[in-house]
Amino acid sequence: MEKNEIHTLSLVGYGNVATHLGRQLKTSGISITHLLGKSTKDAHALAEELNALLVFKADALPRHQLALLCVPDDQINALSGQIDPETPIAYTSGAVEMESLPTRDKLGVFYPLQSFSKKRSIDLHTVPFFIESNHALFEEQLLMLAKKISSNVHLANSQDRKHLHVSAVWVNNFTNHLLHIAQRYAEENGQNFEHLKPLLKETIAKLDELSPREAQTGPARRGDVSVIQKHLELLTGTDRDIYALITSSIIDTYSKKP
Amino acid sequence: MEKNEIHTLSLVGYGNVATHLGRQLKTSGISITHLLGKSTKDAHALAEELNALLVFKADALPRHQLALLCVPDDQINALSGQIDPETPIAYTSGAVEMESLPTRDKLGVFYPLQSFSKKRSIDLHTVPFFIESNHALFEEQLLMLAKKISSNVHLANSQDRKHLHVSAVWVNNFTNHLLHIAQRYAEENGQNFEHLKPLLKETIAKLDELSPREAQTGPARRGDVSVIQKHLELLTGTDRDIYALITSSIIDTYSKKP
Repeated sequence: MEKNEIHTLSLVGYGNVATHLGRQLKTSGISITHLLGKSTKDAHALAEELNALLVFKADALPRHQLALLCVPDDQINALSGQIDPETPIAYTSGAVEMESLPTRDKLGVFYPLQSFSKKRSIDLHTVPFFIESNHALFEEQLLMLAKKISSNVHLANSQDRKHLHVSAVWVNNFTNHLLHIAQRYAEENGQNFEHLKPLLKETIAKLDELSPREAQTGPARRGDVSVIQKHLELLTGTDRDIYALITSSIIDTYSKKP
Repeated sequence: MEKNEIHTLSLVGYGNVATHLGRQLKTSGISITHLLGKSTKDAHALAEELNALLVFKADALPRHQLALLCVPDDQINALSGQIDPETPIAYTSGAVEMESLPTRDKLGVFYPLQSFSKKRSIDLHTVPFFIESNHALFEEQLLMLAKKISSNVHLANSQDRKHLHVSAVWVNNFTNHLLHIAQRYAEENGQNFEHLKPLLKETIAKLDELSPREAQTGPARRGDVSVIQKHLELLTGTDRDIYALITSSIIDTYSKKP
């Protein structure tokens, strides 16, 4: 074990991110001594699973041990104000800038670029982690910690992280919402969304070999105004607006030189 | 072999759909006697691979043998006008209504709900096929033909097919375009799109267990106005409009009762 390596830490939070990171860190030999949470069933269960002491106040955390904040973005600022200034803190958010938080000696980011669901296990080994800190040694420690659970670890400043987070919103949140619209439309019109699943799988599998730009097909790509018009007549409200706007964006994209 | 089963056919077209269907039909024991195409390298290569006679005029097709039209939507009408009225025709389009074509004794639809790329082989066995015809016996023959290459074969009228096609545009064309926007944004801002790939895989893999509605996360789902505002400031033009519109659609979706 290298001299500066982190081998114990406190976990703050008991949601999806805390659960996935906590489990994997424990499996990798990190001792999670304390879990800062609330007296809920989930928090008790996670503390027990991780063999951590469940505590309810920030001042119950060991003062010189890393506190890994796995909490919603809007709680990071308040929590970091409650935790002793001598306690090293790292948080797992893509959107929160380090500069927006109260200053402290050791402040860092430990951002896994992935969407975690309680019910699904994730292979963290392939998940990209982005690390940043105001303190060189602490940054090195966070890098080493991330490398214990992932082979895909990078340094990234707050600006990089913001751009990655915007990209992630398109890749995950927005594509998922279009799939929700597709499912709602199919089912409202008597079609089984399961029939669309093989197409969905292939849409994504194809991107192992082609860029999305190369993979684009369909009426908008072909400029097939007659099909587009028929589709618009079948849609209403915001769905129709989204259909029209994305169609116009596709037409613009392919009328420009690459 | 059942009495009415189709065992020979003519293929019309030599693009992605013709290539994938032709190969799989041949593998399944169907003899593709003629290929109607142009004198291009691709057409010659496909005819040779399928052991079919390459012909250039519709009247060179055997009169009483199924002609399977694998051509762009806007060529179906003209081609079906050129092919002898006694020749049974089936076409592979999701969007073209049977009623929009010149009438003939045996007219049908043989629609695979999948996106075909030249370079990728597809497991047709899981691809949903949707069959329709104006002639009961011919419909039965098309069903049997589809079942030779897929275990996922259904009857669907033109209305059903139109709804499936609209859904497919959302699932394939529109999600793919959002991924293009994500890649362009990431790269314009110095980020490697490869870092987003594990998130993309998980976004889709998750839908084996959750509906898109249940899987939704992110700033819009949380109503996190401050993050949304920061993201909008990073975007311009149509990207910004699409971000705003999808965000507002997500907010509306989750403010309604399920």
